[in-house]
Amino acid sequence: MDFGYGERATALHRAAERFLTDHVLPAEPEFAAQAAAAPDVWDAPPAMAGLRAKARELGLWNLFLPDPDLGAGLSIVEYAPIAELSGHSPRIMPEAMNCSAPDTGNMELLAMFGTDEQRATWLEPLLRGEIRSCFSMTEPDVASSDASNVTTRIERDGDTYVVTGHKWWSSGGMNPRCRIAIVLGVTDPDGPRHRRHSMILVPLDTPGVRIRRATTVFGYDERTHGGHAEIEYDQVRVPAGNLLGGENEGFAIAQARLGPGRIHHCMRLIGMAERALSLMCQRVRTRTAFGRPLADQGVIRDWIAEARIRIEQARLLVLKTAWLMDTVGNRGAATEIAAIKVVVPEMAGWVIDRAIQAYGAAGVSGDTPLAELYAHARTLRIADGPDEVHRRTVARQELGRY
Amino acid sequence: MDFGYGERATALHRAAERFLTDHVLPAEPEFAAQAAAAPDVWDAPPAMAGLRAKARELGLWNLFLPDPDLGAGLSIVEYAPIAELSGHSPRIMPEAMNCSAPDTGNMELLAMFGTDEQRATWLEPLLRGEIRSCFSMTEPDVASSDASNVTTRIERDGDTYVVTGHKWWSSGGMNPRCRIAIVLGVTDPDGPRHRRHSMILVPLDTPGVRIRRATTVFGYDERTHGGHAEIEYDQVRVPAGNLLGGENEGFAIAQARLGPGRIHHCMRLIGMAERALSLMCQRVRTRTAFGRPLADQGVIRDWIAEARIRIEQARLLVLKTAWLMDTVGNRGAATEIAAIKVVVPEMAGWVIDRAIQAYGAAGVSGDTPLAELYAHARTLRIADGPDEVHRRTVARQELGRY
Amino acid sequence: MDFGYGERATALHRAAERFLTDHVLPAEPEFAAQAAAAPDVWDAPPAMAGLRAKARELGLWNLFLPDPDLGAGLSIVEYAPIAELSGHSPRIMPEAMNCSAPDTGNMELLAMFGTDEQRATWLEPLLRGEIRSCFSMTEPDVASSDASNVTTRIERDGDTYVVTGHKWWSSGGMNPRCRIAIVLGVTDPDGPRHRRHSMILVPLDTPGVRIRRATTVFGYDERTHGGHAEIEYDQVRVPAGNLLGGENEGFAIAQARLGPGRIHHCMRLIGMAERALSLMCQRVRTRTAFGRPLADQGVIRDWIAEARIRIEQARLLVLKTAWLMDTVGNRGAATEIAAIKVVVPEMAGWVIDRAIQAYGAAGVSGDTPLAELYAHARTLRIADGPDEVHRRTVARQELGRY
Amino acid sequence: MDFGYGERATALHRAAERFLTDHVLPAEPEFAAQAAAAPDVWDAPPAMAGLRAKARELGLWNLFLPDPDLGAGLSIVEYAPIAELSGHSPRIMPEAMNCSAPDTGNMELLAMFGTDEQRATWLEPLLRGEIRSCFSMTEPDVASSDASNVTTRIERDGDTYVVTGHKWWSSGGMNPRCRIAIVLGVTDPDGPRHRRHSMILVPLDTPGVRIRRATTVFGYDERTHGGHAEIEYDQVRVPAGNLLGGENEGFAIAQARLGPGRIHHCMRLIGMAERALSLMCQRVRTRTAFGRPLADQGVIRDWIAEARIRIEQARLLVLKTAWLMDTVGNRGAATEIAAIKVVVPEMAGWVIDRAIQAYGAAGVSGDTPLAELYAHARTLRIADGPDEVHRRTVARQELGRY
Repeated sequence: MDFGYGERATALHRAAERFLTDHVLPAEPEFAAQAAAAPDVWDAPPAMAGLRAKARELGLWNLFLPDPDLGAGLSIVEYAPIAELSGHSPRIMPEAMNCSAPDTGNMELLAMFGTDEQRATWLEPLLRGEIRSCFSMTEPDVASSDASNVTTRIERDGDTYVVTGHKWWSSGGMNPRCRIAIVLGVTDPDGPRHRRHSMILVPLDTPGVRIRRATTVFGYDERTHGGHAEIEYDQVRVPAGNLLGGENEGFAIAQARLGPGRIHHCMRLIGMAERALSLMCQRVRTRTAFGRPLADQGVIRDWIAEARIRIEQARLLVLKTAWLMDTVGNRGAATEIAAIKVVVPEMAGWVIDRAIQAYGAAGVSGDTPLAELYAHARTLRIADGPDEVHRRTVARQELGRY
Repeated sequence: MDFGYGERATALHRAAERFLTDHVLPAEPEFAAQAAAAPDVWDAPPAMAGLRAKARELGLWNLFLPDPDLGAGLSIVEYAPIAELSGHSPRIMPEAMNCSAPDTGNMELLAMFGTDEQRATWLEPLLRGEIRSCFSMTEPDVASSDASNVTTRIERDGDTYVVTGHKWWSSGGMNPRCRIAIVLGVTDPDGPRHRRHSMILVPLDTPGVRIRRATTVFGYDERTHGGHAEIEYDQVRVPAGNLLGGENEGFAIAQARLGPGRIHHCMRLIGMAERALSLMCQRVRTRTAFGRPLADQGVIRDWIAEARIRIEQARLLVLKTAWLMDTVGNRGAATEIAAIKVVVPEMAGWVIDRAIQAYGAAGVSGDTPLAELYAHARTLRIADGPDEVHRRTVARQELGRY
Repeated sequence: MDFGYGERATALHRAAERFLTDHVLPAEPEFAAQAAAAPDVWDAPPAMAGLRAKARELGLWNLFLPDPDLGAGLSIVEYAPIAELSGHSPRIMPEAMNCSAPDTGNMELLAMFGTDEQRATWLEPLLRGEIRSCFSMTEPDVASSDASNVTTRIERDGDTYVVTGHKWWSSGGMNPRCRIAIVLGVTDPDGPRHRRHSMILVPLDTPGVRIRRATTVFGYDERTHGGHAEIEYDQVRVPAGNLLGGENEGFAIAQARLGPGRIHHCMRLIGMAERALSLMCQRVRTRTAFGRPLADQGVIRDWIAEARIRIEQARLLVLKTAWLMDTVGNRGAATEIAAIKVVVPEMAGWVIDRAIQAYGAAGVSGDTPLAELYAHARTLRIADGPDEVHRRTVARQELGRY
Repeated sequence: MDFGYGERATALHRAAERFLTDHVLPAEPEFAAQAAAAPDVWDAPPAMAGLRAKARELGLWNLFLPDPDLGAGLSIVEYAPIAELSGHSPRIMPEAMNCSAPDTGNMELLAMFGTDEQRATWLEPLLRGEIRSCFSMTEPDVASSDASNVTTRIERDGDTYVVTGHKWWSSGGMNPRCRIAIVLGVTDPDGPRHRRHSMILVPLDTPGVRIRRATTVFGYDERTHGGHAEIEYDQVRVPAGNLLGGENEGFAIAQARLGPGRIHHCMRLIGMAERALSLMCQRVRTRTAFGRPLADQGVIRDWIAEARIRIEQARLLVLKTAWLMDTVGNRGAATEIAAIKVVVPEMAGWVIDRAIQAYGAAGVSGDTPLAELYAHARTLRIADGPDEVHRRTVARQELGRY
């Protein structure tokens, strides 16, 4: 097991560190003020433009893509610490580097499975950061953790497919720059369990696409990121060439999307946990109660120690998973991918919660980023499958050894 | 130890149950829709009026006040189950019964310590539900868990007091019907530690009172309840007769306010936990994954059992505390009052969190009350002193026995 | 809900308190020394005799039996605090008062279901404390949490029954004064699930009874209490009149035994937790590290607060359960009986574990009672059904409400 | 970060694996039977001899020693997986490979700080496995987590030192083959805090050495390993040449001993956790309750997943620590050394506890190794400093960054 980085990765890591410290963190107040001043805009505020330009200038662009022709050619182990850094300022830095979900996963799918035409039409502008995309998988009326529950239909009709279904949590879908959705639906309801679904590209301006509303997360609408859209696809007709990959291969394609996506999510979460721990340490060193700084209280020291210990362990497990994906592929890392999906959001939630407690009332308010970080970490114990499904995966694998 | 109720209390309890089932829960959707339609209003939406009228008609009004001339003359043990019921719909039912914080605590203070004039001017309209009030204790720049940190000054100047300070989390203070603040400040900075503070009544339309903004709780502004105001008191001059109780008795008065307030908060939280558990049970019986209802999964049954067990224990401890307060007073119940402040918000947070998990994406969204309930429960681990301070109280008492 | 005690119960409670303080605790060192000096004796050491005489003299004898003709006529709520006190010194005090398991449960069964002859032969000497008894239910080769797994056969053969089976954890069975076993076995393998088993009285000197060995609990053999016997019943023939209750009613009888038994176990465990907390407080007040007593460390204060809070809640839940059993019977208390079986051993284990930590190396050694108390508490998460079975009961009841 | 192994280490790892599977595990029943048959022997039973011979033959001897002239020349990263394997059978395999504590630590000290004469007299026979040693640091009357509490005196008197003090938990000290103790005591009570102590070699047959008794761990005497001795050093006079390292350097030497010792302990504990998880999986696949194997119950699968996830994380943190020690030394790894001391015993205790629960009554008995493994893991949360001290170290380091 080797978590070492090449020279180029090290240089990019350092550039990202400087970008975070010198540009992203100082821009947070302005970013927040601009967002607050425009409560009806579902997109990043103007401050983002300069940060994106800076990131490109520093070579911090599309680093998530392992394909050297499209991205930076970094291994997952090499990209991991950069994703972690971006988690320190999750509303700004990932997008500034064109590395934010769900665009990253969508770009990966287009890069891996897209036809030349699909890549020219959608991947190119996404890579340039001109448009954004969403991923329509989850449905409000069924437990989406069990893919066989999906009810959206994708039916062939001559040279077209007709998509009919009801999706929600299509993140980014409220953004006016969001032009394309990748939709998962059933093409062969009678096929074998894992050979029923397909993925299809649906431009959001196609007739029949109705964006009904945005759902919130603990009161947050996550506007600057394009929110979470509930979308009705009512007899939406798209050319047959919009199918992504082969018919009935939707499940396999979804799996391909999951592995790297989880690593990215987890590394960003580790960055959020580091941010929270750092804020907590700063707070307790400067805040005084009962005649001494909070940092002198044993219980608070205990939280800090526990936070450091949990973060370290979680990061090592993510790195191991990344290393496995780099060396033996998604399949060979299946157990670990499930494991980090359980470990990291729980860890991050715990660390952030302790930081909130250390900040008191400021911690639950908008005056620190903590409450929103918590909401984000909490949501990731549900998104992409609840903890329970992933634990089951780990247990099945373990029991299978005996 | 006897947790029994008198006949009158039993009748009121049943009336409250019917009120909840027949009027409050059915009104929730309309209440939410009205609130959503008026995003700039910091008060309950129109639907509240009918509910308040109904509550009065049923005799469910000011039940929190033990004084039989002003309220219902219930003991704390007797009021507890009604407060619990109101927690099932915490945005609506407490206020509909004129039993919502911080008005309850403020009315208690006015009933106990108010002069005739203070009672006529402020208590009467509060009891009638015509105006609302806030409590200005916490300050943004210091750890308010340690009262000796309070920096707001209340200085005598002839027939007036001049109040100067910076407060936040004055809940309800954004409400246009909120007319009066009870402000805690230092009158004798050189007095002994617990004889330095006073409380004073400050009408919010007094010159120098500046409501600067509302702070949020996670992403919620809690508008329908009047939000949480940050208020600057800049050389605010009020008549000397506005002092509540004697000079330098602010600390003792604050203590008197805390006991019942915590019981109320805790009982409402237990109601919230019951609501969450009930929602969770309904969900898992009807939601299917992997071919069977979620309710058949052992892990989910485990949550349900744990939730029931924790709720029962917490409720019994609150009842014991109420019984102690009824029989030996606040002082004799000091350890238990600290204990329930630790136990109940943590328990409620855990139960609500599990319900969120059972609901998946709907759980973190606004489509269930769960995420907002969680935010509320989480905040109560900080408000009125963080858990850590109360644990210290319990430990000190325990160690003192040896 | 009323947890009050009558006058007589209050007097007995006080007597028990004095007995504990003045006689039992001071006898612990001699008891331990005598036991250590006689490593081959499977019975209480000589010091027990004087304590038993003292207990009888004080009226502290057979208090567990609600039947006023046989015992003290206390309600379960009234007996509970006495059982709790006995848990402070669990190896000595319960037996000194003739209130130790499994004799208590066995005497209850004989009192409720025994024929006159059975009562004369076995109950009388048990009530006088002359002999001891064991209960043979659990079997080594099957999961005894599922009663339908029991394989021991009780077959009618003329005027006799023939018992054949393999039992273990027949507690007390190594004691030479243990004369009688109550054995659970299958009389009608084809009967309905809960109408297959019977209970039968088997004198341990009957041919075919083979006591094979004692099992240990962690490293303890629990000799002074008669240990835990593994017993083979090989074609053991007893008169038909030895059947306890009716044929095929074994399951119902076992249920009758469980309710009070669990209350007793739980109250004793609460006493053990109180003992541990008291030892912990004494330790941390007197032990110094890094220049100050351990009691000044925030983390240790946190344990103490948490211990006190958990004990209070657990006790209240046990009292509620006792009250339900007193007022509506075993059936109506089924959920609570399951709940306390989960809550109390876990709570006690946690408190004892923290006390161990506060004692350091002395805590895991035989120099404090803590490690043995821990082993006892840990075992009770398994005995009488593992936690998981009881949680399932609570969850089923909860889900049944929707 | 690179956790890879060289070829030689890989070969030794495989040899150790075969040794465990083919020789150690099969010998466990005979080992236990021989030990049970000789309850007064404080040494490994005869079965050990053959295993030691086999281990030597396979080159599995003194592998812990990094010095290639004395041991195998493995890095700590390379030795770690072998230590882990030995934890699968902790009473047998470490000693069979001459790699058991406290001999390993003592041999390291002699290798690093011993004079030629000390090495010839004590290190040589220890390396050959002919004698055993103990380490006398902890004292019964003070909190040994704070080294400045040590009261044992080592006073120079001409050509000799006179040692006077009272020690306990001198593990292995009951073994008749244990010939030498390394004793920590104060040589300069007025020196600076970390320059007061020295270490000295005291042959156990020196006049004045009195082995008073063995202390137990949760009822276990750990006889086969030589138990835990309480030793009085009453004016014990040894030659001045017996001082280990320089005068007043005891603290620094103790630190040198701790790093590798903790890695070894932690890796063995991980092996114990793996053994427990493996036993748990075997059990639940074969045990049936309520009509299906325990392995089908969601709660039990949850334990298994959690166990695997915790073990993985803990192992990675230990490997990182080992790698740091190999590359930047004890000092640079100080935080991690503290962290693993907290993480691993807690993790192992949790995993073993869940395995106990899965085994039911057999789990707490001597019929599985689980209860004894638990006792061992629990003890390691105290030995070498309680968790709380190590957490403090981690927190101090973290806070120091701000």
